Amino acid sequence: MSGDDERRVTITAIAREAGVSVPTVSRVLNGRSDVAPDTRERVEKLLRHHGYRRRGSRTVRRADLVDLVFNDLDSPWAVEIIRGVEDVGHAAGVGVVISAVHRESSSTRQWLHNLRARASDGVIVVTSHLSPAVQAQLRRLNVPVVVVDPDAGVAGTDVPAIGATNWTGGLSATEHLLTLGHRRIGFVAGPPHLLCSRARLDGYRAALAAAGVPADDRLVHPGDFYHASGYTAGGALLDLDDPPTAIFAASDQMAFGVYEAVRRRGLRVADDVSVVGFDDLPEARWASPPLTTVRQPLVEMGRLAARTVLRLAQGEEIESPRIELATELVVRDSTAGPAGR
Amino acid sequence: MSGDDERRVTITAIAREAGVSVPTVSRVLNGRSDVAPDTRERVEKLLRHHGYRRRGSRTVRRADLVDLVFNDLDSPWAVEIIRGVEDVGHAAGVGVVISAVHRESSSTRQWLHNLRARASDGVIVVTSHLSPAVQAQLRRLNVPVVVVDPDAGVAGTDVPAIGATNWTGGLSATEHLLTLGHRRIGFVAGPPHLLCSRARLDGYRAALAAAGVPADDRLVHPGDFYHASGYTAGGALLDLDDPPTAIFAASDQMAFGVYEAVRRRGLRVADDVSVVGFDDLPEARWASPPLTTVRQPLVEMGRLAARTVLRLAQGEEIESPRIELATELVVRDSTAGPAGR
Repeated sequence: MSGDDERRVTITAIAREAGVSVPTVSRVLNGRSDVAPDTRERVEKLLRHHGYRRRGSRTVRRADLVDLVFNDLDSPWAVEIIRGVEDVGHAAGVGVVISAVHRESSSTRQWLHNLRARASDGVIVVTSHLSPAVQAQLRRLNVPVVVVDPDAGVAGTDVPAIGATNWTGGLSATEHLLTLGHRRIGFVAGPPHLLCSRARLDGYRAALAAAGVPADDRLVHPGDFYHASGYTAGGALLDLDDPPTAIFAASDQMAFGVYEAVRRRGLRVADDVSVVGFDDLPEARWASPPLTTVRQPLVEMGRLAARTVLRLAQGEEIESPRIELATELVVRDSTAGPAGR
Repeated sequence: MSGDDERRVTITAIAREAGVSVPTVSRVLNGRSDVAPDTRERVEKLLRHHGYRRRGSRTVRRADLVDLVFNDLDSPWAVEIIRGVEDVGHAAGVGVVISAVHRESSSTRQWLHNLRARASDGVIVVTSHLSPAVQAQLRRLNVPVVVVDPDAGVAGTDVPAIGATNWTGGLSATEHLLTLGHRRIGFVAGPPHLLCSRARLDGYRAALAAAGVPADDRLVHPGDFYHASGYTAGGALLDLDDPPTAIFAASDQMAFGVYEAVRRRGLRVADDVSVVGFDDLPEARWASPPLTTVRQPLVEMGRLAARTVLRLAQGEEIESPRIELATELVVRDSTAGPAGR
C-alpha cells in the first residue's frame, strides 16, 4: 500500500499487458457483462495491481484508505468490528473511513459519491443489504469489496464474505441448556432475512432434535436483535401457561431484554430462568449476572476483513470467497439447572 | 470542502497576502515560537484558507478527510462519539478516519505519519493526553485540532475543546439522591488526571455541602471508569460497617460494576441500594433495572466537534475555544428511597 507511486497507468498500457483490446478494458471498467469471465478477471487484476483509477476520480495514486460501511452505528457490536479493522489498517498505514447509510438509498448514494471522490482502496460492508445496483456501481468503481456477516443478498454472488459459525453456535448454546437438564427451552430469533438468524435457529432446532426433545413452535418468538424485542419476546414466553425454564436469545442485546422481562416478573436470572445470549459483547461480562453467551470473534472478523480487502487491493488472489470463523460458548452466571417452577 | 480545487498555493503568495516575509511564513509552518501571535494567526488562517499543504505531503488539494483519534476503542462510549462525527462528515462529503493510539508513543508516531500521508483536513482527539510534542507536530502539519472531553493537558493551551457540564451533572445526581432521602451516599470516582473526573467529584461534594451533609472521605472510592473498578469500589463501600444507602458512580460502566457487587451480596438495586451512573450509554436503558444516570450528549458532542473542525479547516473563526454542552439527569428504576437497612 505504498502512497508514493506516482506513475499514471493508461487503459492502453493495461490492454497491452493483458493481451486484449482497449475496448475490452473499457467494457470491464464499465461493468458490462459481454466480457469472458477469465478475461475480466485478468484485466481487473491488472487494474488493481497498477492502482488504476477512472478519469474524474481525484487521483491515480492509491488513497491508502479503506471504507468501512455499516447500516447503523447503533450497536456496541459495531465498535468491535471497527477495532479489528482499525488494528490492521493502522499497522498497514491505511486509514479506515467509517460510514453509516441508515438503510436509506439517498444515504447510500451520498456514500457512493464520497467513496468515488476519495478513491478508497477497498470497501468493507457490514451486515448490510448489498443490492445488485450497489454491487454493480462498486464494480464500476473497480474497488474490491468484502462483506462481513452477509445477508441473503450476496449468497449467490462472488463477493468475498466473512462470517461466523452461526449454526454451530446455536447448537452448542442449546446443548449447554439441555445438559443442565432443561427441556422447555425458549428461543428469541433474529430478523429472518439475515442468514445468521436462520443458521442460529436451525442450530437450536438441531440440538433439540438430537436430544429427542419435540419442537414446540410456541417456544420460538421473533425478534430483531435489539433490546426491546428481547423484552417483549421474553415476556411473552414467560407468560405462557407452560413457560420455558430457559431462554436462548439470538443476540446479547435481546438477552438483556429477557433479563428485564424476568426481573419485572419478580424472578431471578439463573435461579428461576436460565438465559443465554449470542455475540459476547463486552456488555455480556458487565451484565448482572454475567451472561452465558456464544462468542462471535467480532474483532478477528474485522481483522480478517481488513486483511482480505487489502490483499484484493494489491491484486492478490484469495483462497476462498467465504470464510466462517469459529464461535465458542462462554459459560458465565446466567445459566443453571431448571428451578422447581 | 470542495475536492476539486486544483490550484497550488506557494509560500510566496501566502507571504504577499499576509504582508509578511517568506521566512516568517516558514517559521509559522515549522511551528517556531519566534513569531508574534497575531502574525501567526493571520498566516495560519491564510494557509488554511488556501488549503496549503507542505511539500512532501501527497497533495495540495483538500483530502476531504477528518481524523478521529481515540486512545482505545474499548468502550461503547466511543461509538456514540463516532455516530455524531460521522453524521456531520457524511452530509458534508467528508470521510471520517478512525484511529486508536492505545496510549503508546510508537502508535502515536505511526498515526502522525499516516495523518501526514493522507493530508487530513482536521483532527478530532477524544479523551486523549495531547502532549506538548504531539501538539507541536500537529501545528507543524498545519492541521486544525479539536479536543473532545479534554484532560488537564490542554487546559492551558489554545486548542478548541468540547466537553459537557460535568460539575453540574455531579451536582444534580447527588441532589436527586438527597431528595429521595439518602444521607450516606457513596461515590466511585474516575481517573483523577481527567478534568471531567474532578468536576464530577466536586459536584457531588457541592451538593452534600449545600444540603448540610458532612463529607465522609471513606465514602469516596477511586475508580478508572471501567467495569471492574466499579465492582471493586462498590463492594468496598457495601462492606463498610456503616455502608451507604446509595452509590453514585462517575461512569455507567462503573455503575454496572456496582450492580454486580450489589447482586453478589444478595441485595437488589433500588430496593436495597440506589445506584446512579454517568454517561447515559445505550446500555443504561438495557440494564436490569434500567439505570438512573446523568446524560452526556455524546452524539451531539461528536457533531459539534466535526462542525468545529470543518469550520477551522475552511479558515473560519470560532466563537469560543471551550464549549460545554449541558448534562441532564435521566431518572429510571435504579433509584428509590433508602431501605430500612
